[in-house]
Amino acid sequence: MPFIDSIRWDSAGLVPMVVQDGKTRDVLMVGWVNREALARTVQTGFTHFWSRSRGKLWKKGESSGHVQIVKELLVDCDMDTVVALVEPRGAACHAGYGSCFYRRLEPLSLGGSLVACCEREFDPCEVYGDQAAGTRQEDGKGEADAR
Amino acid sequence: MPFIDSIRWDSAGLVPMVVQDGKTRDVLMVGWVNREALARTVQTGFTHFWSRSRGKLWKKGESSGHVQIVKELLVDCDMDTVVALVEPRGAACHAGYGSCFYRRLEPLSLGGSLVACCEREFDPCEVYGDQAAGTRQEDGKGEADAR
Repeated sequence: MPFIDSIRWDSAGLVPMVVQDGKTRDVLMVGWVNREALARTVQTGFTHFWSRSRGKLWKKGESSGHVQIVKELLVDCDMDTVVALVEPRGAACHAGYGSCFYRRLEPLSLGGSLVACCEREFDPCEVYGDQAAGTRQEDGKGEADAR
Repeated sequence: MPFIDSIRWDSAGLVPMVVQDGKTRDVLMVGWVNREALARTVQTGFTHFWSRSRGKLWKKGESSGHVQIVKELLVDCDMDTVVALVEPRGAACHAGYGSCFYRRLEPLSLGGSLVACCEREFDPCEVYGDQAAGTRQEDGKGEADAR
């Protein structure tokens, strides 16, 4: 059976895809894939996702040029989550950071604060335009969606 | 505002938590946390999850002893996914592997096969008991749930 037929999609036909830098091993982002997005990721070698807010397939980097070249694909024991090990061309995060996980809880307690733990690599307004950058950060989409 | 009040829980009150080994940087597992599971993770320093299949909070390692000691907690730009960097005490996966992502798609194509890419660290039957190990692998729970 082709591996993609073994994936246990959720009720919305999605599973999470963790994107990890194959060299630095940083977790860059977590997005959602449906069957088509996962198939395109494997076929083209570039990460693709399903946008829950926009209801459409998107290719990471389609606006910014910050594509992710897939080097390896791992699947978990339950067949309901995948990890893509990638070579990123540019920053992953729409906020300009290399990783979407650019904030750390400091100190590690319920009273701690989220503190930026890496440097910004680009100005979102220059890459996405003022309006797009503003919207993207405030639209409450609830998913990694840094086109 | 406490960071936990800023988390954007989904309609079921959950967000994914990626568990990454702080030293090897391997992604070990992805589970789901609700507000209580995330609070306990931060307060106790051990990963806790919400089991969607069993409808209850669980501590990783509560059956196996394979706990995960939390070293850092990262939050993404959209506030809807967290990464816990941990020091694992034992294997993460109920199937006996250090990571739940123990299979790689080889070759990286739709016709590829899932091939184990790391060694088994324990026999699940010895840790969970024959029946438990069998059930856990076949119950279609759709989430990492290696107690």
